[in-house]
Formats: sequence, structure tokens, C-alpha cells
Amino acid sequence: MPLTKKQMKFTLEATDLNSSARAGTITTDHGTIETPIFMPVGTVGSVKGIHQRELREDINPDIILGNTYHLYLRPQTDIIEKAGGLHKFINWDRSILTDSGGFQVYSLSANRKIKEEGVKFKSHIDGSYHFFTPENVMEIQRSIGADIIMAFDECTPYPCDYQYARRSMQMTHRWLDRCVNHLEKLPLKYDYNQTLFPIVQGSTFKDLRQQSAEYISSKDAKGNAIGGLSVGEPAEVMYEMTEAVTDILPKEKPRYLMGVGTPVNILENIALGIDMFDCVMPTRNGRNGMLFTSEGIINIKNKKWEDDFSPIDPQGITWVDTEYSKAYVRHLFTVNESLGRQIASIHNLGFYLWLVREARKHILEGSFVSWKNEMVKKLDQRL
Amino acid sequence: MPLTKKQMKFTLEATDLNSSARAGTITTDHGTIETPIFMPVGTVGSVKGIHQRELREDINPDIILGNTYHLYLRPQTDIIEKAGGLHKFINWDRSILTDSGGFQVYSLSANRKIKEEGVKFKSHIDGSYHFFTPENVMEIQRSIGADIIMAFDECTPYPCDYQYARRSMQMTHRWLDRCVNHLEKLPLKYDYNQTLFPIVQGSTFKDLRQQSAEYISSKDAKGNAIGGLSVGEPAEVMYEMTEAVTDILPKEKPRYLMGVGTPVNILENIALGIDMFDCVMPTRNGRNGMLFTSEGIINIKNKKWEDDFSPIDPQGITWVDTEYSKAYVRHLFTVNESLGRQIASIHNLGFYLWLVREARKHILEGSFVSWKNEMVKKLDQRL
Repeated sequence: MPLTKKQMKFTLEATDLNSSARAGTITTDHGTIETPIFMPVGTVGSVKGIHQRELREDINPDIILGNTYHLYLRPQTDIIEKAGGLHKFINWDRSILTDSGGFQVYSLSANRKIKEEGVKFKSHIDGSYHFFTPENVMEIQRSIGADIIMAFDECTPYPCDYQYARRSMQMTHRWLDRCVNHLEKLPLKYDYNQTLFPIVQGSTFKDLRQQSAEYISSKDAKGNAIGGLSVGEPAEVMYEMTEAVTDILPKEKPRYLMGVGTPVNILENIALGIDMFDCVMPTRNGRNGMLFTSEGIINIKNKKWEDDFSPIDPQGITWVDTEYSKAYVRHLFTVNESLGRQIASIHNLGFYLWLVREARKHILEGSFVSWKNEMVKKLDQRL
Repeated sequence: MPLTKKQMKFTLEATDLNSSARAGTITTDHGTIETPIFMPVGTVGSVKGIHQRELREDINPDIILGNTYHLYLRPQTDIIEKAGGLHKFINWDRSILTDSGGFQVYSLSANRKIKEEGVKFKSHIDGSYHFFTPENVMEIQRSIGADIIMAFDECTPYPCDYQYARRSMQMTHRWLDRCVNHLEKLPLKYDYNQTLFPIVQGSTFKDLRQQSAEYISSKDAKGNAIGGLSVGEPAEVMYEMTEAVTDILPKEKPRYLMGVGTPVNILENIALGIDMFDCVMPTRNGRNGMLFTSEGIINIKNKKWEDDFSPIDPQGITWVDTEYSKAYVRHLFTVNESLGRQIASIHNLGFYLWLVREARKHILEGSFVSWKNEMVKKLDQRL
């Protein structure tokens, strides 16, 4: 725990000459975060199937993510407050980022109603009604106590008509102002700082994305996020939107692309100037038997691995890669043993963290684009 | 891996003056096993929810158990053979014991038919028919490659009428002879020894248990087991049967009480001269939120733990005990996160191993009975 509360800081260490890729360092009161970074998702205060010790010692991310919507419903804000914040509740002393609940509420589709005041929604657990506003979402995130907290936004669906996207973006901007105004009234909850990131919206319309990026930039936040992508649009459209936005967002602030994505998506977006990522893919797909490796993708459930006693990944990024054979992990999936899901989750998160660290290394060395182009050829292959 | 194959050895180090408790050492080609020992159950080649690394480094049992019935069905014997045996397949270089499948087949009740020749049964997975005989169960266990293998027996239900119990026991004895005769014809499969343990049956009839113990003792096996208990009979009846049998089984051989039991059951049976135990209780009950501690039993799902931020067990036997709070683990169970089940399983197995190690220590120190009596008072309490 820090002795003095400091504003979040971002130091840009290097910018690639052949792309917009950057290497930097974010400093929060819970430590430094080397960028580009991938943030494992700890939805309800647990990165699914992974002990905090494994996360710390084996996967070793500088920051993880928690979901406000889920934590608000269970264990509920008061329990987290009593624990002294989410770091203490889950026993994680590095940085945490919480989303605003906007995306989860949007996912409830039929069970939520969006108005200017906020969003009324029905809990997926017990059907009870709740109301999220920019103001109370700031208060909830303040109680949860993440180092980086997100503005309350509306995440538009894909496809989305232009008029809806424009009106929604404008409301997201008004909500951002309400978040900022409300936060200004609140003293710090714990003995460390919390930093608000605003979110660029605008669906898949370049002019809206640019407008939104201009508006968000004008707020002079310590970091900025891009939301509403990776919701079903083609990867090329996502890259186009990212590029339009990173051309505008201030270079001296970290840029967080929310909810993205595959290993290839991550490398391509790093090339476009993104510094931070999160996605459930490594753990969710891992639990379904999909292993991401530097040579391509393995569906470990396939019969072809039945008697392949070689390590699940000879590269050996985390200890599970060489501890267990493909045949053994395939067997664990066949008999539905949770250990299989645990192994796949550790492997995939280890691989994602390796990928962004390698990207960083190549950015610092000036060899990012050629390395990225080589990797992209392999990463989507099915082994 | 050993350079020379040795017969399993048991050294009796101490016998308690005030009870029949013993401390000893079993040596197999995969290492030494300090007794009394509790063997974690790795049903299908995985101790549920626990990485081999955690098992080795945190829980630290000298031996684990695998289930022949389950491994025979999946991944199937030929895959384990191709891997070079179960140790290599699951990456566990300490000792392994496999049961004979007798108990699982008995559990299939309506889906099996027991005859003198063997047992025809229907797979719980795909409904396919299979036939276990004393001979092929020896071959299957030889291929699986455990250090200690079990004779094929019939496990009688509770309650069981005397005539059935007697006939069944006699058949189990004939099956034992068939196991022994068949094994004699088979050369070793791998580069280490495998030792057969015969099993005492006789239901809850003292005279049958005694007869069976006499017969089993006459075989002069390197170790002996007691089966057919912990199947629903009162604990007092179990202890009575154990005592009747341990009075007869040779003192210089280890005694294994199969499928037992609660922490109290284990201490009481140690007092009666049992050296080896296995049970799914620590992991199965753990997955249901029951934590065994030195102060009593915690149902971690209870609302009373909701805001109890103290360690799940201040005694701190394994690292999970102090890494996580009761409130956090309670939350994980409430939201059905697998990490909760993983934590409870590590805690409970750590506790069981601690319990038998403490028992051993007190046997060696000569203070077993007074310690046991103190512990028994606390272990069943609900906290």
C-alpha cells in the first residue's frame, strides 16, 4: 500500500517508427504497468479457475479487471467496502481496473431500459430491478476501489443505424460530464487514488468515432478508452475505427481498447497505437478446450491429441505448458475434469501476457512490425 | 525412476502403548510413504481441481489413488500403456495405488450382474457392456501401472443378510486366488514393481470378518486391505469390524482401510491399527462448501461468513488457509466460481494430510491417545 496518494501517471517510452505502436509505463498507487498490457478478467473478483498465487507468480500481469455490474450484484458493494475495497477482498495488491457496467447492462438487451437519466435493468440472478446512473456508477466504483474506473456509457449493438449511434454517442458524452462532475464532489474512499477513463463510442461510423474522440480528448483525462468494438463487426472495421480514434486521442495518455480480442486483434491494434486490452477470450475459450500458442490454435478436445504425449506448448511460457501433455489435457476435457479447464486458462493467459510482453520488447527494439507480421501469419492457424 | 526393481517394504517404526496405533514406512519403487497415510483420490487421473504441482508442493502426500473402473473406461488402458503407465500419463512420480474396480462396479447396482466368473456391467458413460474378472482386472491394473494394486472383490451393501455376506466373502476369497495365480504368470510391465493387496470382506458380521482376515493373512501378501466398510453402517459397527480384523492381520504388514472416512473415523481407525486410508470426502465435501478444520467443520456457504474477513483457517496448514478470507471463499461459492471449489479442496486435503502426520508424530512421541481424544471432541463440531 502506498504512503502517499499520487495521480496516475503514464510515461511514453518508445513509439515504433513503422507503425503507431507504443511502449510505455502506467504508474498507479498499486504499482507500475508496462504497456502494451493485457488485463485478465476477474469478473466477480476471481479470474476464473486461477488462484491469485498463480496469477501473481506464473501469469504475472501488472493489472487485472473486475466487472462493476457483477460485483454490485454479488457480493454487493457494502461487503467490498467492509473488506476495505476489492484489492483486500480478493487479496490482490497490484492494480485493478473496473468497467462501468455499461457493457453488461447493454448485454441484458430485453431486460433493461435506457433513458437519459440512466439504465433500469433486471438482475440476471434474481430478477430484481436496479437503476444505474452515471452518478451511482461512480459511487459504486469508488466503493469497489479500483485504481482505474470507467465512465458510464452506452455500448451500441452491431449493426446499429447511424441516427441511433449518433444520439447514443451524444448521451454517452453527457453521461461522461455527469460522471466527472459527480466524482469531483466525492473525496477519495481509500488511501489511494482512483483515475477515471472516459470512453469513445460512435459504433462503426468513422465520423462519429472522430467526433467522439475529439470530445473525449477535450476532457483531458489521464487515460482514454475505446468502447463499443468487438461486438460482432468484421476485424477490418474494428481496425479502421481504432485507427480513426488513435489518430486523435492524445499521444501522452494511455489508450485502452475494451473487450478485445484474439491474439491477432491484439497485435493489429497495438500497431494502431493501443496500449491496454482486456478480454474473456483466453479464459472462456480455454474452458472450452481452445489453446492459443505461438504456432497457432489447438482444439485440445480433438481425437488427434489422444496419444500425443508431447507438452501442450514446447515453448513453455508458463509451467503448465511443459508439466502436462496434450494427451493428458485432452483426457481431462473428455472426462470433464475441472483441472483441464484450469490448465487451459493458465496456459492461455500466460500466452496472452507473453504476447504483449514480446510486442513491447520488439517495440523497444524497433523490430515490432516485422515480428508482428510473422506472428499474425501463425496465430490464426489451426493445428 | 528407480534403477532396480524392489519388492514393496514395510518397516514398523513404533506401536502405541495405549492403543493399537502404529507408525511405519512403506517403500515402493516410487519412494517412501510414512504411515499412517491418507491417500488423495485421483479418480480419473486427476485429484479434482488440484494441479499436480499443488499436490506435490503444498499438500505433499507420498501416494495418491486412481480408480481402475474410471481409467479403464477413459482414457482406456491402451492410452495409459502408450504413455508408459499412469505415473507418466498424469506426471506424478511418487507412489500410486489403484483400486480394483470392485467398489465402482458394486455402485452400479442395477447395471451390473455378479457371477462366479466375474462381473458384467454397463458403462455409466455410454451404456456399453464390459466384463471384469479377477484375471483381466489384474491385467488392467498392470497396464495402469500403480505401485500397489488391489485384488478384485465384491463389496457387499449395507445392510446385507448373513448368507449373502458369507457366500460373497467366499467368492472374494476365490477371486483372490485367481488374482494371485494370474499375476504369477505375468512379467512386470514397467521398470518398477507392483504389489498386490488382498481385501478382507464379511460385511458387518464379526465372525465372517475374522474368517476373512484369517484367510487373507494366510496369503502372506506384502500388505492387506479391509473393504466393504463405510458403506452406510454406523461408525461404531465400522470400528468393531476394524478391530476384529486388525487383531488378526499380521502386524508387520501395512493395513489399508478402504474408502474411510471423516477426520474422526480416521483417528479412531488409526487407534485400532490402520495404516492407510483413502476417501473422496475432503474433495467432494469441499466442492460442496464443507471445510474441515482443527476446530471443527465450517459450512462456508452460510450467510454468517459473509463479512468475516478472517483467514479460512488461522492454523495455516496450506497456503490457501491464510491467502483467502472466509468472506471471499463464501462469495466464490455464492457466485459458483470454480476457484471456491479449488480452495476448499486444497484446504481439506491439506488438513487431512496434516491430521495423519500429527497422528504419526504423536504415535512416535507416545502421546497419541490423549491427543486423539482431544481432537475427536473438536473435529465434529459445527462452527
